[in-house]
Amino acid sequence: MTTHHFVATAFYNVIGTMPPALKIASGDTVVTRTLDAGGYDENDVQRASGPNPMNGPVFVDGAEPGDVLKVEILDMKPTRDTGFTRSVLAANVVDPEAARDLPRSEKMLWDIDRQAMTARLKEPVAGLERLVLPLSPMIGCFGVAPSLGQAISTATSGAYGGNMDYRVLGPGATIWFPVFAPGALFFLGDCHAVQGDGEIVGTGIETTFEVTVRLTVEKGRPISWPRAETADDIITIGNARPLDQALQHATTEMLNLLVADYGLTKEAASHLLGQVIRYDIGNVFDPAYTVACRVGKTWLPAR
Amino acid sequence: MTTHHFVATAFYNVIGTMPPALKIASGDTVVTRTLDAGGYDENDVQRASGPNPMNGPVFVDGAEPGDVLKVEILDMKPTRDTGFTRSVLAANVVDPEAARDLPRSEKMLWDIDRQAMTARLKEPVAGLERLVLPLSPMIGCFGVAPSLGQAISTATSGAYGGNMDYRVLGPGATIWFPVFAPGALFFLGDCHAVQGDGEIVGTGIETTFEVTVRLTVEKGRPISWPRAETADDIITIGNARPLDQALQHATTEMLNLLVADYGLTKEAASHLLGQVIRYDIGNVFDPAYTVACRVGKTWLPAR
Amino acid sequence: MTTHHFVATAFYNVIGTMPPALKIASGDTVVTRTLDAGGYDENDVQRASGPNPMNGPVFVDGAEPGDVLKVEILDMKPTRDTGFTRSVLAANVVDPEAARDLPRSEKMLWDIDRQAMTARLKEPVAGLERLVLPLSPMIGCFGVAPSLGQAISTATSGAYGGNMDYRVLGPGATIWFPVFAPGALFFLGDCHAVQGDGEIVGTGIETTFEVTVRLTVEKGRPISWPRAETADDIITIGNARPLDQALQHATTEMLNLLVADYGLTKEAASHLLGQVIRYDIGNVFDPAYTVACRVGKTWLPAR
Amino acid sequence: MTTHHFVATAFYNVIGTMPPALKIASGDTVVTRTLDAGGYDENDVQRASGPNPMNGPVFVDGAEPGDVLKVEILDMKPTRDTGFTRSVLAANVVDPEAARDLPRSEKMLWDIDRQAMTARLKEPVAGLERLVLPLSPMIGCFGVAPSLGQAISTATSGAYGGNMDYRVLGPGATIWFPVFAPGALFFLGDCHAVQGDGEIVGTGIETTFEVTVRLTVEKGRPISWPRAETADDIITIGNARPLDQALQHATTEMLNLLVADYGLTKEAASHLLGQVIRYDIGNVFDPAYTVACRVGKTWLPAR
Repeated sequence: MTTHHFVATAFYNVIGTMPPALKIASGDTVVTRTLDAGGYDENDVQRASGPNPMNGPVFVDGAEPGDVLKVEILDMKPTRDTGFTRSVLAANVVDPEAARDLPRSEKMLWDIDRQAMTARLKEPVAGLERLVLPLSPMIGCFGVAPSLGQAISTATSGAYGGNMDYRVLGPGATIWFPVFAPGALFFLGDCHAVQGDGEIVGTGIETTFEVTVRLTVEKGRPISWPRAETADDIITIGNARPLDQALQHATTEMLNLLVADYGLTKEAASHLLGQVIRYDIGNVFDPAYTVACRVGKTWLPAR
Repeated sequence: MTTHHFVATAFYNVIGTMPPALKIASGDTVVTRTLDAGGYDENDVQRASGPNPMNGPVFVDGAEPGDVLKVEILDMKPTRDTGFTRSVLAANVVDPEAARDLPRSEKMLWDIDRQAMTARLKEPVAGLERLVLPLSPMIGCFGVAPSLGQAISTATSGAYGGNMDYRVLGPGATIWFPVFAPGALFFLGDCHAVQGDGEIVGTGIETTFEVTVRLTVEKGRPISWPRAETADDIITIGNARPLDQALQHATTEMLNLLVADYGLTKEAASHLLGQVIRYDIGNVFDPAYTVACRVGKTWLPAR
Repeated sequence: MTTHHFVATAFYNVIGTMPPALKIASGDTVVTRTLDAGGYDENDVQRASGPNPMNGPVFVDGAEPGDVLKVEILDMKPTRDTGFTRSVLAANVVDPEAARDLPRSEKMLWDIDRQAMTARLKEPVAGLERLVLPLSPMIGCFGVAPSLGQAISTATSGAYGGNMDYRVLGPGATIWFPVFAPGALFFLGDCHAVQGDGEIVGTGIETTFEVTVRLTVEKGRPISWPRAETADDIITIGNARPLDQALQHATTEMLNLLVADYGLTKEAASHLLGQVIRYDIGNVFDPAYTVACRVGKTWLPAR
Repeated sequence: MTTHHFVATAFYNVIGTMPPALKIASGDTVVTRTLDAGGYDENDVQRASGPNPMNGPVFVDGAEPGDVLKVEILDMKPTRDTGFTRSVLAANVVDPEAARDLPRSEKMLWDIDRQAMTARLKEPVAGLERLVLPLSPMIGCFGVAPSLGQAISTATSGAYGGNMDYRVLGPGATIWFPVFAPGALFFLGDCHAVQGDGEIVGTGIETTFEVTVRLTVEKGRPISWPRAETADDIITIGNARPLDQALQHATTEMLNLLVADYGLTKEAASHLLGQVIRYDIGNVFDPAYTVACRVGKTWLPAR
């Protein structure tokens, strides 16, 4: 198993079937430094334009359509002392009439303390003088080339992953993507130091990271939507608008997972899900929203 | 402050402007025994028909339209050794094509151990032989008479509360309802021993409880949607279809709360919400869905 | 068959199980004068408050739950020389970001020429100096007492009818409502002189009318949603949010209608609907939206 | 002005920045023969795979991002004596519970009489023996390369056009697309002989056509969404899920059109739209739904 230090020199605003920037073996590890959502690097030099410029694609040997790409997020180190957010709730997350009375959104700067692993607003804001947030790094946008040779904006997401902006997808999490193209063609970028549910100001605290991921091809267990796992939970992810449809995708995928991986009938899976399921709203801002369906491992039968 | 032991003799399938079953002073406590969602009592005798027969209304002296009714859930004691659920995911929580392949839903029985405070399926189900769930009691349906003299089915919910099926609303939680009718006219029922997010099989573990609530009228701080508080969080609740709209109601109400109660500007409230908000999906089954917006008290400025 | 000249003296802002204002036999005709949506009468005297005060209820002898009430709209005569609209698109019908830039809505007056049967803005507006609209009267809000003894705001709608604001429901149209309460308890009001699809400024041209309807009880052909008929079309109506759900209700009801009334299989009904269906958006403003599904009679097989 | 007889030899299942198959001058006419949605040609030989293989792209000299491409549909001649539909309503257009009871969808054949310009089911179906539908040809999927160099599946649609499946877009209609890539890169295919609103069986009558379009670049009048015009109406088109959002896009674009092209204030545009607007549902089947907003030319002020 090799570790590749991948220095991206081109950045993409789409996820698609592009020429590989790096070829690796299944099981290899990739370390790479990402730009922020606006294309600025760790020295605050703009190296690409938005939205969400991606490092990649990484071609993983042996990955074929119908396979699954397992992505273990091993580490995320912040590489800059500042991040930015937008300053006002997105118009679509408040009542239509209330949207009229929102102020205009501007760019806000945050200081990131990489020793303490905390963030705070650069300029004092009345009432929030003491707000110090622990960093909770996550990858906002990552995934693999979608079906049909499509190339899709990094503003949005789908079955192939993309801009899911789901705060749980940070160090320690593993995520599985369905593979649609030879080599899978893995992309990542748009990392956040902190983000609330829904990404409702349209950003997390956007900054740059050194990200370490291990990429492994898995055969013989096809999936329809991204799946994930943390220390405590198994997770399925649906990306669509409206939230109702994203939730349907995530729930259907979890039902299928429980049937296929744990041998439950649909009724047994329903008994379990009905009483223990948890839903997370990844984002309710991007063109496709993200809903995750979580089940605590403590409730699962032996596989 | 008086404690009233209220024995309901009539049960309502609507929440509305009905003749008071009990009159109390603001700050009084009410102890009452509820039927299950199907109208069966603690002895499994059917005393009313569904949906969700309510105890009430309780007229709280001094409550006027524009006021707020504070409801502290002091205690919920299960009063029966069985509960029931439906056996299959609701058709609307899976992909439309997947709905075709769902089995028909039937009534499932659960045993409730009131000493251990746990529940398990009465009949063994393959793969779930070891599933023992800790009870986490909650009130599925409660609220106050809605505006305009309306009487609305206990299947649904709105600004006045109702069938929100939000699992956080159990012992230790406090909830505030906007008052629309003199005396507020408080109703409750439809309690669950356990329930996952979304109530996606269409039920929690439906059973009977002895519920203790303290009802207090608050003046001068009008609200538009139910608000709640637990040991850790402040919460606002939106009830509507689709989920997107329920989320808009909850988010707008939280924005208004932070501005009115904590003196934040909309920008400051946005900074806070953008990075720390949590969303819960109460139910995604009833005619109106429920989304809750939570903010950890640890992040709040002093009031 | 009797014709009743019904002079309403009380007006309701809910549709529900209220004491009958008039009792008639099945097949009788009712002539009644309605207030406008704000409660003003033909002399511009406020006689009730909004929203949408209703004349009724009319108890129709013999109507029982499970029956259907047929309502033939025989005539609508405008009774006032003015109507009003709101002046700006509703915030929910434009993009959330665009909602911010809408001006505030105000009340606009229109002159109604009852000889020419036309309407024009009372005050000249640049670019619309020549806009003269032919009257196309319709009943915005009508229906029967809903299930469970509910009383529901005339702002919204459901299976029982209500505030559907569907412009096709004017003179010459017939509509059928499912009956939920003895006597059906029919209400009507909120008539419009003109209205575009969607009622997207939140009003049609709101004014007063003398309305003539014939009410007939039909047995043995239960329906789930309002159905209608014009000279050219058969129609089913769904009321819900979002539009997607209203459309599902209307389409399901049309499928059921074609199977039950025309003996088609679901496949045959699908062949027909797939190629000839028309959808109308009744309103996209009220709490429940309205979508109608229309099929030209020319395409129907013999019954 | 040249007429190009364009014989496609490669077909695309995406709309994107592909190598031009034909280069033309602005104002030129293109005549081309399309495959059906499944990739079969006029001789029923499969020449490409689905979904919706496209002829194109056509590079129009002088078209630059920010311009508009005007597409006049001059003619559509059916080139085959058969078409196909799916046989059952899509699961997402009926109530979730009703979806369970739908039969499985199969491919149905229709005979097309190119003299009489009519279509009828190839095999008799009980109750539809006399159903003969007049052809009403339309282009299901057409548009220009989207922004950011994206390549997007011909199953869906967006601001760039795509699979809108809107039955009004046939001979005599003109449509305008916003240009995102040099040369515009125009694609077309997926033509239907007949289609109801919503494309609710998932197809129109899918067949092959010879299509004649005139393509003209327009400068200085940027648009955000496709716009169209027929003999009677001006039209704006929104593509998104759910229907509510598609409607918001179409309505916002019409508001902007009336302000920019007719000099109306937003209030005046609201007066007009509120009373005369018509909404059409293009499709409610594809990943993005299509809603069109129509205004009769008779109501428009002079430009």
